[in-house]
Amino acid sequence: MRIVVLAGGIGGARFLRGLKAAVADDAGDADITVIGNTGDDIHLFGLKVCPDLDTVMYTLGGGIHEEQGWGRAGETFAVKTELAAYGVGPEWFGLGDRDFATHIVRTQMLGAGYPLSAVTEALCARWQPGVRLIPMTDDRVETHVVVDTPEDGRKAVHFQEYWVRMHASVPARAILPVGAEQSKPAPGVLEAIAEADVILFPPSNPVVSIGTILAVPGIREAIAEAGVPVVGLSPIVGDAPVRGMADKVLAAVGVESTAAAVAEHYGSGLLDGWLVDTVDAGATEAVEAAGIRCRAVPLMMTDVDAAARMAREALRLAEEVRGQARA
Amino acid sequence: MRIVVLAGGIGGARFLRGLKAAVADDAGDADITVIGNTGDDIHLFGLKVCPDLDTVMYTLGGGIHEEQGWGRAGETFAVKTELAAYGVGPEWFGLGDRDFATHIVRTQMLGAGYPLSAVTEALCARWQPGVRLIPMTDDRVETHVVVDTPEDGRKAVHFQEYWVRMHASVPARAILPVGAEQSKPAPGVLEAIAEADVILFPPSNPVVSIGTILAVPGIREAIAEAGVPVVGLSPIVGDAPVRGMADKVLAAVGVESTAAAVAEHYGSGLLDGWLVDTVDAGATEAVEAAGIRCRAVPLMMTDVDAAARMAREALRLAEEVRGQARA
Repeated sequence: MRIVVLAGGIGGARFLRGLKAAVADDAGDADITVIGNTGDDIHLFGLKVCPDLDTVMYTLGGGIHEEQGWGRAGETFAVKTELAAYGVGPEWFGLGDRDFATHIVRTQMLGAGYPLSAVTEALCARWQPGVRLIPMTDDRVETHVVVDTPEDGRKAVHFQEYWVRMHASVPARAILPVGAEQSKPAPGVLEAIAEADVILFPPSNPVVSIGTILAVPGIREAIAEAGVPVVGLSPIVGDAPVRGMADKVLAAVGVESTAAAVAEHYGSGLLDGWLVDTVDAGATEAVEAAGIRCRAVPLMMTDVDAAARMAREALRLAEEVRGQARA
Repeated sequence: MRIVVLAGGIGGARFLRGLKAAVADDAGDADITVIGNTGDDIHLFGLKVCPDLDTVMYTLGGGIHEEQGWGRAGETFAVKTELAAYGVGPEWFGLGDRDFATHIVRTQMLGAGYPLSAVTEALCARWQPGVRLIPMTDDRVETHVVVDTPEDGRKAVHFQEYWVRMHASVPARAILPVGAEQSKPAPGVLEAIAEADVILFPPSNPVVSIGTILAVPGIREAIAEAGVPVVGLSPIVGDAPVRGMADKVLAAVGVESTAAAVAEHYGSGLLDGWLVDTVDAGATEAVEAAGIRCRAVPLMMTDVDAAARMAREALRLAEEVRGQARA
């Protein structure tokens, strides 16, 4: 079975770890291709940092800081401390020494002319994530967030600045995937979608993670036309994001922070099945009324087993969708 | 008193620390300008590394690894270990985490368009070395060493590869300061020489440190025409280099590893005074016969006091030269 997963950072990575466990237990004969969000990428200290790709790579490769969900386990911060001593910032982005090495290798390879997809493959040769990880695009796409600030009035800031430095403490007026319109899917992305047996949207941020991937021209269309079940898992449980601040960016695109509203935001043209948490069982009716098959199952990824159960439910719903399509 | 010092790495840095102590004790009213060798500079992991500039900066700024003579005190090696885990080398060049931060800041500033001299000034704003440190040039000059290898025959390798990886274990056939002919002295270099009251050559490598600085068109001429005493200290004591492998590169330029031969290599057109170690007292006659005033004094920089005594002897010899010129 060929599974394609669109992934952001922590939510996507933890879901993928569950998916890997689920398919290893159940069949063992599945190829997983992950299309990773690069809209969060940022240049820091002259280095190219790809937070979402790295979170997937570290999580699946066994190098993640488990409690934090991002960055490396056992980190030290000598480089960051020194950069601060030089008065070089930003200080609000927490890069550890081990993590720095990844960015140094990536930046060196990009400087030598390799595209990000080739660089990501090279980094994964070390981490052996057990999936094929492809950035959504080799082109530069940067998610900017429009905010109102007391000092500067309305302005656009890099997503990381909004998320990490400002902690999404002010309303997002708009989300701009800068460069997306001119970008092309990275080599292998459209092929993987065309050859997929099932396509999954993990409980990643529907706007700045999966939404950004879908903003790369050609990807949304390829998914819609793939003719295979497309199943998503709600990142909203009980009207609040499971983690992160998805409600802030949902508001910016005029979508309520409810499991049903997110499904309708994706729409039945794209999505065939949707899993909501059991606390949101009441939402299934509305989702199904929107033409999307919906089930209520536990959606809290408390550990790998819980994530694996969610992955199995998603694959089961995909088979239901497939069966219905045949019937 | 305005003192200009041409400096390589460890020998130059330790001498400078002594010189600072000497002028602080004696008069306190001296400006020291250091023209640093950049021929040893190397790009590693996509980062610009300036070993000699950093050794001077760290030594005078109190950040040096004292026993080692280069690199930072209290280093950790998380980044290097990670780079090796990615299979990214070279592994033979020992960059610690703290040191990496310096190279990251430098590379970022160079990438933003600042010349190396401005970057060096910015780095020194943190270290406060107590001297004005200027790279010999803002242009790229790279010292290559021609060697005969069993595998590849005769070839040129970067100086760091010869020095650090090969430990100068094979004869150097030639020393090539690649790019030197096209380089220009960095802003401030010629001005500092023209305004100097005395010019000192510390016991740095006469070929790959001071020789490379002198290979930048205009610097040798400016020193020769400055009309002020030029005094050097022998890096060769008892026919062997005090540290490093200067004999290997002296052989490549056809110079014997003796205190007298090095003085004659600089020549009386450039050098007015020369200090040899007391064990080489027998060499003073030959040096003076070559038209260079010579004294034998202890030249082992066992500690800062010893280096300060050497600096005082150098300044004293400069005054002798000046007195003789007036007479």
